[in-house]
Amino acid sequence: MALRNTSFLQACRGERPAHTPIWVMRQAGRYLPEYREVRARVTFEELCRSPELCAEVTRQPIDRFGLDAAILFSDILVVFDAIGVPVRFNPAPVVAEPIRTRTAVEALPWGRAADHLDYVYQAVRACKAALADRVPLIGFCGAPMTTASYLIEGGGSREFEHTKTIAFREPALFAAMLERITTLLIEYLGGQVAAGVDALQIFESWGAAFAPDDYRVHVLPHLRRLVSAVKAYGVPVIVFLRGNASLLRQAAELDADVLGIDWSIELDRAIDVVGRDRIVQGNLDPMALFATPEVISAKARAIVEAGRLARGHIFNLGHGISRHTDPGMVAHLVEAVHSA
Amino acid sequence: MALRNTSFLQACRGERPAHTPIWVMRQAGRYLPEYREVRARVTFEELCRSPELCAEVTRQPIDRFGLDAAILFSDILVVFDAIGVPVRFNPAPVVAEPIRTRTAVEALPWGRAADHLDYVYQAVRACKAALADRVPLIGFCGAPMTTASYLIEGGGSREFEHTKTIAFREPALFAAMLERITTLLIEYLGGQVAAGVDALQIFESWGAAFAPDDYRVHVLPHLRRLVSAVKAYGVPVIVFLRGNASLLRQAAELDADVLGIDWSIELDRAIDVVGRDRIVQGNLDPMALFATPEVISAKARAIVEAGRLARGHIFNLGHGISRHTDPGMVAHLVEAVHSA
Repeated sequence: MALRNTSFLQACRGERPAHTPIWVMRQAGRYLPEYREVRARVTFEELCRSPELCAEVTRQPIDRFGLDAAILFSDILVVFDAIGVPVRFNPAPVVAEPIRTRTAVEALPWGRAADHLDYVYQAVRACKAALADRVPLIGFCGAPMTTASYLIEGGGSREFEHTKTIAFREPALFAAMLERITTLLIEYLGGQVAAGVDALQIFESWGAAFAPDDYRVHVLPHLRRLVSAVKAYGVPVIVFLRGNASLLRQAAELDADVLGIDWSIELDRAIDVVGRDRIVQGNLDPMALFATPEVISAKARAIVEAGRLARGHIFNLGHGISRHTDPGMVAHLVEAVHSA
Repeated sequence: MALRNTSFLQACRGERPAHTPIWVMRQAGRYLPEYREVRARVTFEELCRSPELCAEVTRQPIDRFGLDAAILFSDILVVFDAIGVPVRFNPAPVVAEPIRTRTAVEALPWGRAADHLDYVYQAVRACKAALADRVPLIGFCGAPMTTASYLIEGGGSREFEHTKTIAFREPALFAAMLERITTLLIEYLGGQVAAGVDALQIFESWGAAFAPDDYRVHVLPHLRRLVSAVKAYGVPVIVFLRGNASLLRQAAELDADVLGIDWSIELDRAIDVVGRDRIVQGNLDPMALFATPEVISAKARAIVEAGRLARGHIFNLGHGISRHTDPGMVAHLVEAVHSA
């Protein structure tokens, strides 16, 4: 049962492993030919719902690169299966019947909803078996507002018009929606931990949807409740609040073990904002992997160096890897981080 | 010749007019029925190329609201007419033949290119005549990198893959492109001033494309040259560096009269970053106009209050107004700002 590579979990606990651990957001994905080979046979929805195929693509980057953690292959929107809201991926997600009223919210089957996500928990078990204790497995979910925004907008959004109109005009309804979703997410992550994940990451992919003062009023309380509740599960919790470095002050108020930093801010400045007593994760620009190996090495070294200012540092990109990335450059990055 | 409403220009000079001046980015636009009525008759391209229609839509929001400045109706991409690069608006801009090599750059007719933008200068004169000295007229252009990104990507972009690949792999080529574009923009803004604009705004709409350390190396020097050169024209210069509050420190190094602040940061914090001796413009979230009048008033008052911390403040949105905005809420906002 003992993991052979514990560098990631050591860093999550504030210990200093022999090298800076690295994993890559969206590391199981379309930039890998072996992933595209699987996707040629099944749809994205089928892949997410097949524990065996989830395990296969989750381990692909672990087999190929010397990464220090795996992340469950899934999608933040599978959680809508729990409340009977269909999502199509086209390839962008589409929720055909958006939820924007109190009546619509209350009509959803919220009770013990996370029980319906058993295929994810099976995928966790399959991933753990496939990884055979080589590296830890990270489970995840979307943060309450990010998750709610898809439900409200009916898909991805640039301006979050409906989400913010509800927050500004019907704050009690907005709070009730996030309250329900937060409870569901707490149960869902509990199921992932029970199935065996070694750490959790909460993706606030659309944090930048709200200005900081509105984020504090309408969003942060729900994220805080989620983080505090899942901390009780006993595995490290990473919060990645993406897209607006101005929200880092609020992120630093969360009881998360690790704070994910996106690439919009210099890592040393981010550490100054969240505090040198925190553990941070990040933050290479994914597009830097289109640079020359020499430039990648220099950027990686600078980030490893900045990471030493914090109590702990896990190397990652500052956003998901691009589908157009050369896998050879990922191999180069891992080597550069480990030897920095 | 004397302007009847000088509050905007007073604020640009660091004086304190009787009320906080306000204008709204994209104030001549699709949220106005009278604008949609014009657009029903002509394409966007035809509108940009018709001095008479530009003047008509430029004055529409001035006729309707008590705004303190007008902005020339145009598009940052018309500048490509100067170098013979066709742009279609579909409605997103498309450059059918992107420019990504040294050969392609050098093949473009850069010499005295801004002379080909005479229809813009005619539009400036028509706007000045239509405004009849009621309020000042702001001219504008895109910043060098924002402008170049459309040329390189072939349109809008989310990841700026080609732009950043060139910057990281062929920095000398990237610098040469931005150098040429900057020279063109300097001449273009000179033409606008000669035609009569009372102030200039430079839109770095895609500042967030680059991480701060890369922005400093690859982008800032060109923006700095543009700002310094156009300052010599003798009208106030506003720089709006949008999308990444982490870049505000670099914006503060520019010799601009006014620094535009987007809505991703609290205005008081932005003022702390750029310095209380600066004049700022901003920064209400455009989506706040979907809130109730009471919420809009409260947010407007808070921003006016924060603006008092700086040497000067011009009220604006922190990004362009949404096409779905109720014009009645704009009227309410103008009233709220003027009475705050």
